[in-house]
Amino acid sequence: MLEPDRILRLESDRVVLLDQRRLPEDEVELVCRSAAEVAAAIRALAVRGAPAIGIAGAYGYALAARRGEDLNEAFSVLAGARPTAANLVWALREARAAPDPAARASELHAEEVERCRRMSVHAAKLVAPGSCALTHCNTGGLATGGHGTALGALMEAWAEGLLRHVFVDETRPLLQGARLTAWELESAGVPHTVVADAAAGSLLAGGEVDCVFVGADRVAANGDVANKIGTYPLAVLAERHEVPFYVVAPTSTIDLETPTGAGIPIEERDPGEVTSRFPARNPAFDVTPAELISAIVTELGVHRAPYSQSLSGAVAA
Amino acid sequence: MLEPDRILRLESDRVVLLDQRRLPEDEVELVCRSAAEVAAAIRALAVRGAPAIGIAGAYGYALAARRGEDLNEAFSVLAGARPTAANLVWALREARAAPDPAARASELHAEEVERCRRMSVHAAKLVAPGSCALTHCNTGGLATGGHGTALGALMEAWAEGLLRHVFVDETRPLLQGARLTAWELESAGVPHTVVADAAAGSLLAGGEVDCVFVGADRVAANGDVANKIGTYPLAVLAERHEVPFYVVAPTSTIDLETPTGAGIPIEERDPGEVTSRFPARNPAFDVTPAELISAIVTELGVHRAPYSQSLSGAVAA
Repeated sequence: MLEPDRILRLESDRVVLLDQRRLPEDEVELVCRSAAEVAAAIRALAVRGAPAIGIAGAYGYALAARRGEDLNEAFSVLAGARPTAANLVWALREARAAPDPAARASELHAEEVERCRRMSVHAAKLVAPGSCALTHCNTGGLATGGHGTALGALMEAWAEGLLRHVFVDETRPLLQGARLTAWELESAGVPHTVVADAAAGSLLAGGEVDCVFVGADRVAANGDVANKIGTYPLAVLAERHEVPFYVVAPTSTIDLETPTGAGIPIEERDPGEVTSRFPARNPAFDVTPAELISAIVTELGVHRAPYSQSLSGAVAA
Repeated sequence: MLEPDRILRLESDRVVLLDQRRLPEDEVELVCRSAAEVAAAIRALAVRGAPAIGIAGAYGYALAARRGEDLNEAFSVLAGARPTAANLVWALREARAAPDPAARASELHAEEVERCRRMSVHAAKLVAPGSCALTHCNTGGLATGGHGTALGALMEAWAEGLLRHVFVDETRPLLQGARLTAWELESAGVPHTVVADAAAGSLLAGGEVDCVFVGADRVAANGDVANKIGTYPLAVLAERHEVPFYVVAPTSTIDLETPTGAGIPIEERDPGEVTSRFPARNPAFDVTPAELISAIVTELGVHRAPYSQSLSGAVAA
């Protein structure tokens, strides 16, 4: 497992991030010396993945508190860095409500890693022995500050001898699958194959995929899930081929204040990430309706439809 | 429209191709001086698109005949350049059967352009006024030696004032959409937006797409269609959102000798086209079952299910 403080950490006067834009070629750290610099790093995807940007936001807020920055301003600039992930505002609220934001941010980091560990144990039980899994984007230690959500579950299933192979969507435009997930799987010694996003359909049609595991950036109260663009097509294809489609996310990703997926803001990123030569559009996320999701796994266990009951009961509890 | 002999042509002692690997940055020609060099150009995608590789194959065979090459060997090396497109073997047989292969190859080129022109008129009638279309890969003049199949139909619909906008799948791994289709649409002044392949699902879910038009590399007797990887997921998504899904292809792409899509060989290309850093797989095509296809348009007209009757009747006639 990636050491949590190798991925991101708060030092006395700075937040230090493993720069995920540079992986897998270079392992270099990015130093942020203000809340604004942390916000810029989140916006530029130096740190990404819903739980990890929550932790980065909390560290940024704690840094602002230490430096005597205007904390309303710091909260606002950090909360506005990226709109879709529920974890960012959630973690900022946690840090703001605490008497010692730095202590709370570090605790929150440790809690997220522990949540991931617990949910991976729950989720690994869903993997039938000898399975080939398909995953999208990066939901490993990098995305969560340690351990991982969907990828953490697959790593656990591998450790338990249940998993045979992982197909990794390359995840255009920024290739988090081909760069980050493949790198984490290689480090862990898990057999894997990267495919173009558009190839997942024929893998499913050909019976090569036994289960699909993805993470989430926000889960609405009814179980609709916003996740990296391309998740929704996978869910539609998985349903057509009767392959189970699992979402693995900590409760910090569940947003009971958003009733359905229609209320989740979808970030439109720079079209230049797709092509700078022609007009382009670059929605970073899509919404998968709850009806296509076989189960949502949190640290509390495996939640099944109707999610409006199973999620609210669990999270409120 | 791209001039047919700008895309590819036979000169006295060589076949000259517009090198599609270099577009849109550079418009440079590739000169092939033997059947083997033409086969290498087809394999390397200097020329691609099912009708265009058929024409290139015929020109390559004609060149071999002029040069006094072993013609069985020339036929075999050209036919083996790429396995999926039906047009390659079809065009080679046409050239071989002719008393003057060069004359037949040039005639065949002109016939393909004329087939495309006719099918684009048929297909444009399927476009409701004010439509936004989605397309995949490149099916324009570049892919066909002039005019185009699915993209030719969209160009015709634009000329008739029916089309509002074209969404272009970038088409990983080799970006034929982002490089070639966008370039052709820009040249023709048709409004267009490039998206990552994985974003097509949310465009369809959001009601932004009124029709999907794709080409084909091989159409089996039952109407199953092999086309660029990523076509099948689009068809599944189009069905879910009740958006019509049209295949536009000349009769030279229809292979009545192949009963169903299961019999179509799917080319696996170099995984390094996806990523050279990690293990990868790179199927170049997928198969869309006939049940997901609203209509197949050839130069003869609009064919509807059951395709086993509508195609064989038309092609045999």
